Amino acid sequence: MKKNKLLWGARFRKPMAETALRFSSSIELDRHLYKEDISGSIAHAEMLAAANIITRPEAERIRKALLEIQKEVEKGTLELPWPVEDIHTAVEKRLVAKLGPLGGKLHTARSRNDQVALDERMYLRKSIDEIRKAIRQLQRALLRSSKKYVAAVMPGYTHLQHAQPVLLSHHLLAYVVMLQRDSERMEQCRNRLNYSPLGAGALAGTSLPIDMGRVARSLKFDGIVENSLDAVSDRDYLIEFAAGCSLIMMHLSRLCEEIVLWSTKEFGFVTIDDAYATGSSMLPQKKNPDIAELVRGKTGRVYGNLVNLLTVMKGLPLTYNRDMQEDKLPLIDTAHTVQSSLRMLAEMFSHTRFNVNECESRAATGDLFAADIAEYLVARGVPFRKAHQAVGKLVQFCERGRKSLPDLSLAELRRFSPKFQSDIFPLLNPRTSVSRKRSAGSTSPVEVRKQIRAWERRLASRI
Amino acid sequence: MKKNKLLWGARFRKPMAETALRFSSSIELDRHLYKEDISGSIAHAEMLAAANIITRPEAERIRKALLEIQKEVEKGTLELPWPVEDIHTAVEKRLVAKLGPLGGKLHTARSRNDQVALDERMYLRKSIDEIRKAIRQLQRALLRSSKKYVAAVMPGYTHLQHAQPVLLSHHLLAYVVMLQRDSERMEQCRNRLNYSPLGAGALAGTSLPIDMGRVARSLKFDGIVENSLDAVSDRDYLIEFAAGCSLIMMHLSRLCEEIVLWSTKEFGFVTIDDAYATGSSMLPQKKNPDIAELVRGKTGRVYGNLVNLLTVMKGLPLTYNRDMQEDKLPLIDTAHTVQSSLRMLAEMFSHTRFNVNECESRAATGDLFAADIAEYLVARGVPFRKAHQAVGKLVQFCERGRKSLPDLSLAELRRFSPKFQSDIFPLLNPRTSVSRKRSAGSTSPVEVRKQIRAWERRLASRI
Amino acid sequence: MKKNKLLWGARFRKPMAETALRFSSSIELDRHLYKEDISGSIAHAEMLAAANIITRPEAERIRKALLEIQKEVEKGTLELPWPVEDIHTAVEKRLVAKLGPLGGKLHTARSRNDQVALDERMYLRKSIDEIRKAIRQLQRALLRSSKKYVAAVMPGYTHLQHAQPVLLSHHLLAYVVMLQRDSERMEQCRNRLNYSPLGAGALAGTSLPIDMGRVARSLKFDGIVENSLDAVSDRDYLIEFAAGCSLIMMHLSRLCEEIVLWSTKEFGFVTIDDAYATGSSMLPQKKNPDIAELVRGKTGRVYGNLVNLLTVMKGLPLTYNRDMQEDKLPLIDTAHTVQSSLRMLAEMFSHTRFNVNECESRAATGDLFAADIAEYLVARGVPFRKAHQAVGKLVQFCERGRKSLPDLSLAELRRFSPKFQSDIFPLLNPRTSVSRKRSAGSTSPVEVRKQIRAWERRLASRI
Amino acid sequence: MKKNKLLWGARFRKPMAETALRFSSSIELDRHLYKEDISGSIAHAEMLAAANIITRPEAERIRKALLEIQKEVEKGTLELPWPVEDIHTAVEKRLVAKLGPLGGKLHTARSRNDQVALDERMYLRKSIDEIRKAIRQLQRALLRSSKKYVAAVMPGYTHLQHAQPVLLSHHLLAYVVMLQRDSERMEQCRNRLNYSPLGAGALAGTSLPIDMGRVARSLKFDGIVENSLDAVSDRDYLIEFAAGCSLIMMHLSRLCEEIVLWSTKEFGFVTIDDAYATGSSMLPQKKNPDIAELVRGKTGRVYGNLVNLLTVMKGLPLTYNRDMQEDKLPLIDTAHTVQSSLRMLAEMFSHTRFNVNECESRAATGDLFAADIAEYLVARGVPFRKAHQAVGKLVQFCERGRKSLPDLSLAELRRFSPKFQSDIFPLLNPRTSVSRKRSAGSTSPVEVRKQIRAWERRLASRI
Repeated sequence: MKKNKLLWGARFRKPMAETALRFSSSIELDRHLYKEDISGSIAHAEMLAAANIITRPEAERIRKALLEIQKEVEKGTLELPWPVEDIHTAVEKRLVAKLGPLGGKLHTARSRNDQVALDERMYLRKSIDEIRKAIRQLQRALLRSSKKYVAAVMPGYTHLQHAQPVLLSHHLLAYVVMLQRDSERMEQCRNRLNYSPLGAGALAGTSLPIDMGRVARSLKFDGIVENSLDAVSDRDYLIEFAAGCSLIMMHLSRLCEEIVLWSTKEFGFVTIDDAYATGSSMLPQKKNPDIAELVRGKTGRVYGNLVNLLTVMKGLPLTYNRDMQEDKLPLIDTAHTVQSSLRMLAEMFSHTRFNVNECESRAATGDLFAADIAEYLVARGVPFRKAHQAVGKLVQFCERGRKSLPDLSLAELRRFSPKFQSDIFPLLNPRTSVSRKRSAGSTSPVEVRKQIRAWERRLASRI
Repeated sequence: MKKNKLLWGARFRKPMAETALRFSSSIELDRHLYKEDISGSIAHAEMLAAANIITRPEAERIRKALLEIQKEVEKGTLELPWPVEDIHTAVEKRLVAKLGPLGGKLHTARSRNDQVALDERMYLRKSIDEIRKAIRQLQRALLRSSKKYVAAVMPGYTHLQHAQPVLLSHHLLAYVVMLQRDSERMEQCRNRLNYSPLGAGALAGTSLPIDMGRVARSLKFDGIVENSLDAVSDRDYLIEFAAGCSLIMMHLSRLCEEIVLWSTKEFGFVTIDDAYATGSSMLPQKKNPDIAELVRGKTGRVYGNLVNLLTVMKGLPLTYNRDMQEDKLPLIDTAHTVQSSLRMLAEMFSHTRFNVNECESRAATGDLFAADIAEYLVARGVPFRKAHQAVGKLVQFCERGRKSLPDLSLAELRRFSPKFQSDIFPLLNPRTSVSRKRSAGSTSPVEVRKQIRAWERRLASRI
Repeated sequence: MKKNKLLWGARFRKPMAETALRFSSSIELDRHLYKEDISGSIAHAEMLAAANIITRPEAERIRKALLEIQKEVEKGTLELPWPVEDIHTAVEKRLVAKLGPLGGKLHTARSRNDQVALDERMYLRKSIDEIRKAIRQLQRALLRSSKKYVAAVMPGYTHLQHAQPVLLSHHLLAYVVMLQRDSERMEQCRNRLNYSPLGAGALAGTSLPIDMGRVARSLKFDGIVENSLDAVSDRDYLIEFAAGCSLIMMHLSRLCEEIVLWSTKEFGFVTIDDAYATGSSMLPQKKNPDIAELVRGKTGRVYGNLVNLLTVMKGLPLTYNRDMQEDKLPLIDTAHTVQSSLRMLAEMFSHTRFNVNECESRAATGDLFAADIAEYLVARGVPFRKAHQAVGKLVQFCERGRKSLPDLSLAELRRFSPKFQSDIFPLLNPRTSVSRKRSAGSTSPVEVRKQIRAWERRLASRI
Repeated sequence: MKKNKLLWGARFRKPMAETALRFSSSIELDRHLYKEDISGSIAHAEMLAAANIITRPEAERIRKALLEIQKEVEKGTLELPWPVEDIHTAVEKRLVAKLGPLGGKLHTARSRNDQVALDERMYLRKSIDEIRKAIRQLQRALLRSSKKYVAAVMPGYTHLQHAQPVLLSHHLLAYVVMLQRDSERMEQCRNRLNYSPLGAGALAGTSLPIDMGRVARSLKFDGIVENSLDAVSDRDYLIEFAAGCSLIMMHLSRLCEEIVLWSTKEFGFVTIDDAYATGSSMLPQKKNPDIAELVRGKTGRVYGNLVNLLTVMKGLPLTYNRDMQEDKLPLIDTAHTVQSSLRMLAEMFSHTRFNVNECESRAATGDLFAADIAEYLVARGVPFRKAHQAVGKLVQFCERGRKSLPDLSLAELRRFSPKFQSDIFPLLNPRTSVSRKRSAGSTSPVEVRKQIRAWERRLASRI
């Protein structure tokens, strides 16, 4: 390799070993940032002209050449010189090939340190917008099912044991709520990162009369990073993003766990459309909920990316260190994984049918009414803990006799509390159970309908 | 163990095995939440009275007894019946011991599922407030040093190699900026979690006429959790908190790494006060920067707690699962670790002296001016990339001849570019170097003084 | 605090700040290592005497005093001077209080750096032995159930969908195999760590004529650490241990997931004994598989401890750094968590009943025989992929007609392949299905019985 | 997409949605396993013939076609039908295209579940062999430097503070020792995984008369996996591998941290060859230790991969679940990262020069002899703790007077202990200090030379 192929080679007596250059190149990953890199360079060139560091015609020639390069990348005709260190170098070299010495003016008052931070912030900003749209898509799919199955009851679970009857729609809305927190976190992360670092140079700023604000405005940033050392050594935005994405994946893993459970022969609550399930190479009958399993599995990938970034940054002295190049894989992989998981799940969920009969017949199981019976006693003056004990004994009585609570006679019931009257029987029904709930946010149809309407309004607007 | 010792024993034919009870008890950890548990119970009792579920005098007796129990805990005179499952059970049992059946009314319309979420949210809210205060303390200590050493120059580093001269004060301000982002993240986490889950019951809400809003207001929440299933199955607040704390620790690990480096014999930039250093049991001369090392090490603990929580929640079906009890250790340990690390570092930093002479003499090393020379050429019309190459060759020339850039003659310089004039020499000085910077957020004394004034205003207010 | 309270205070002009001492003290955790610390010190004293560095009577007086201190710790009568840095300091101070200047001879040719590595290795060795015993206990419980239910069939699952009939005993043996790998990994970790670091001193060794081999032998080590710098900077043993424990917990989390699933109303495969289940504070009927949930949850704790240790050690220059003190919590917590989880699960599992009827009736579901039918066709000359397709179409035919494979007539079957004969029908039975398996390690009763016998032999021996 | 493109499509009424197929395809990653996949298939075909399930000529035709496919992959001429699920499907489809129905016989008695486990185990086995070779390469580079600089002294550090003089060669050997443990762990992981899972089928084994042992032998496995359910649900080998690799990277991160430190202007202990350093796009003088930084940064990637795998496997019920497809990225990325990091570091280290004068002049700093002076007093009968205090006071005395220990007069020394004689002075020299060490594994030249010879023997043999 010719030594002058490297931007910074003049100071060295030998060219870089090719093994070392290949090892240290990030081009395979940061080529994903080409669009941001080129937009950033155009804004920089225009600012250099406005500041009279280069002339306006020079800026214009640079702009045109950069747009050509962008097209070459998009058409796949840009031959990257190999080995090449990174996307910034690749673009600058191509520019010099097109424009000669003028190309060498573009990097004035700029370092790859502030340039890469700029590219990452722009890429991340875009990724967050796409993730928020995908969250909205999944929320809408969940909301549609909520509406469709608004009156269906199912067993509510704690510890995966039958707890109390709940509305299926209420259950689905719980995920809409979780996802809304995710969207908010993403938005705040975006707001926090949306400051331009360009102009920080290698670390100290520059003595040239640049206008950082102009670049920031033209690239739609809300302002500039206020400390140049921080500008080049900060990767908080990536970690905050990865943490927010880990929460998203955690939520999706719970939803997927439920889809996997619900599509078992034993639960039978949902049927995934054939177009979103897979078979087995050996077992001809299999229909597997692979999408849900894969998304659940991808949780590991995103958690791992978070740990990766946290590990990389631990204990690094200021300012930029080359370790930080390792941020590209977790950035790009996390953005892609989360976005595609959300989209895929929204699509699959829209093609999933709930087996309402199955849900409802399970919800009629006697045990599920134990709390209702206890509250019945409380409403008739029994201290709660006593009521709980009475019903506990009733349950044990049923279990020994293999009976179900709704099947007991009044006489049997009264052996456990004299407060029981025949008005207890109508309560032992899942629809009644949910309908009698009165507390805010509860599973009562009134409450749930209110929530559905509220969410319809909230999700109608654009992100 | 008597079976009736358990709140929920009536339904079981056998008491719980003592081994199992000990294994599943969380009392050692959740006793840290006693204050929140008792405040929450008082608010709940008062609401029950307002809703006519219990009488006002009953509520008053419960309130008094709970305050007595709080004092017993604080004095250490509360004998916890052992084995006991958790703090909620411990308090309720003591209440029943004091008040008889009335004590059994407190748990009406409440489950430990919503109760523990309430306690955690209150505990976390308090912890966040304390962490934000401790962040402020460290920021102020850094700002004081910034002011004290406002004019001192030091080498600025990238890749831990000399890059350009910077102001020490500018370097310290970078940490003030990082910590400000941390404080904001903590604040947003607090805002997001400050909703009361009480009233969600086990998962479905209740048919009793409770007033969730009243409890929320009396405990200073901003509202109530909008979905009861989410209320008992959500632990986002803990994970978001742990992620924010991981970022704080990452920042502290970088500061500590620098303190460790700077206090080496080789760097010699700082001297830690004897009261904040430790010695060796074998080597009599040792003076070690243990506080900085320990804080750096505790980064592992907080990262580990984050991974713990993410792992626990992965793939759990709704709603509450007992796995979630494992959230107590990471919650309490993270809150304690981060708070004490921030406080300790603020205190130690206030007792750390910078050796300005050492910093400044290192900052006068010739290599540090290479960028200034390149910008000098750019200002005289040389395209940046050419200027960079010329200076690169100059550096190689110096290295071969074991010379330093400031020692070269004009004739020597002009061998590399005819643009050099004698006005280059005054630039080869660290003070000039920083003073000539003009970009926003740069290391120029004007910019840094502006930042210091701005931070003085921002940090003056109360959290 | 008096400055002379610190072992190393002489070189400092000021005593350590109490806040700093409290922050840096590890006594709360490393008091768990008191036994190892004292045994190590006794061995060290005896070696010092053998090497004529102290006299035999001195060594004897030290030995006796140390044993007294051990008793004081065990009786709880040892008043630790507070604040105290660590267990080593606490013991040495108590020794000096008992013996005067003679106590000050014990630390000759020793540093806390090698001493703490010694204590940890001994503690870990013991913990590994206990964990291996606990693994064995759980393996035996699984094996007993395997024998008890040796002939019971159940559905085998892939993707949590019915795949093929398997023997319950075969399923349980899979865990026995996994746990055996865990035990092997623990054993190899123990073998690798069982070398004495004592004598490495602070890092460089000593000029005193010590006999490291003697200490190693008397403490039952297999030899000495071969490089003194490595001896004090190595924590591989902890990380390897934590990684091995993470695998154990991962295995347990899978078993627990199945117990939770199997004890749902929907699966109903197992019934946990009342003594190993818990109830709900609000829902009187609940019987929850809390032990299984808690163990599954504790997986997070152990993973977190592993990440903690890996983070602490990342990028630390040689040799000892105070960050490494943070290894105590993950060491002690991991050892305790894994051991108690294994024991608890063994105990609970021994009190868990399989509902064989439920398992077997689920295993008779028609879909489970699809692979058997395909293999039937293959044995009659149909290429496998064709056979697979034929059966796939059969399954779709059944699904449309809401039929089950065993209910089809021969005529119906032959619409999909002319190779079907009436000898297909006896195959459509779970017992036949498992019995016809011939491959090694398969679910055939012959194979499984062979495995059970082999495991009985392997698990009979002592660890 | 035509529905019959999927191996398992017959049972489904609709083809898979293309979005879903793209989302679930693993081909981008598992194409790395093509060689293992094809070798495994050849061995399987030959076994099918030996077992008379197919004929010998059929097996031979399959073998030839598979070898052709391998060449197509290697030449890049294999057109993979897109979308394709995975490498197994791609190969089988190509085979069917070549051989017609005969191609459909290859998958007899095999599932992708056991096939992928086979491929992974073979790939991992090869990766481990390569990693062990690369470890050996780095060990040899370290050993060569050890020999070259065998007599050079340098400051030994604890807490990054000067502790005692050590031999540079001793320091380098510490890494050789660490890496040896890594190699052992890799070897044991290989031994544990080297069992063939092929024949386990989907999970239950097969009724066809296969010979698992024959396949195992022909693929050089040590035996077969003993339980078919375990065979398809186990991923321990990947996690154990990733944990071992995390330890390797942790070790490399420590070495790299030292290289970064040592190449600072302030330490100046090493000079990296120009061919293994990089420059800056903005700062013309920069020469950065990027290789060391990148390897240190890649530690995060490997830790992240470990967390990824642990997360994926947590709580998965037996047996195979599609989540497990997510194991490919961490497997391939970890193997590649660790191998290339080791190789690169060995290469760079071989091109790194130690600046012996710099090391030695730092090692002559007075403080470094404090322990030697204390041991001098101990050898003259002073109890160690008293000796430590006397020297501590001496150090404080020097610090106040800005003197160095070697500069003190005997009179000054005797103010701190009457035991000092003039024979103390020759000790205050780094060469004497290391030479007087006597303990095994210490930094004495005799010990270190012994270790070097031993390592030369150990590293001479082939892996």
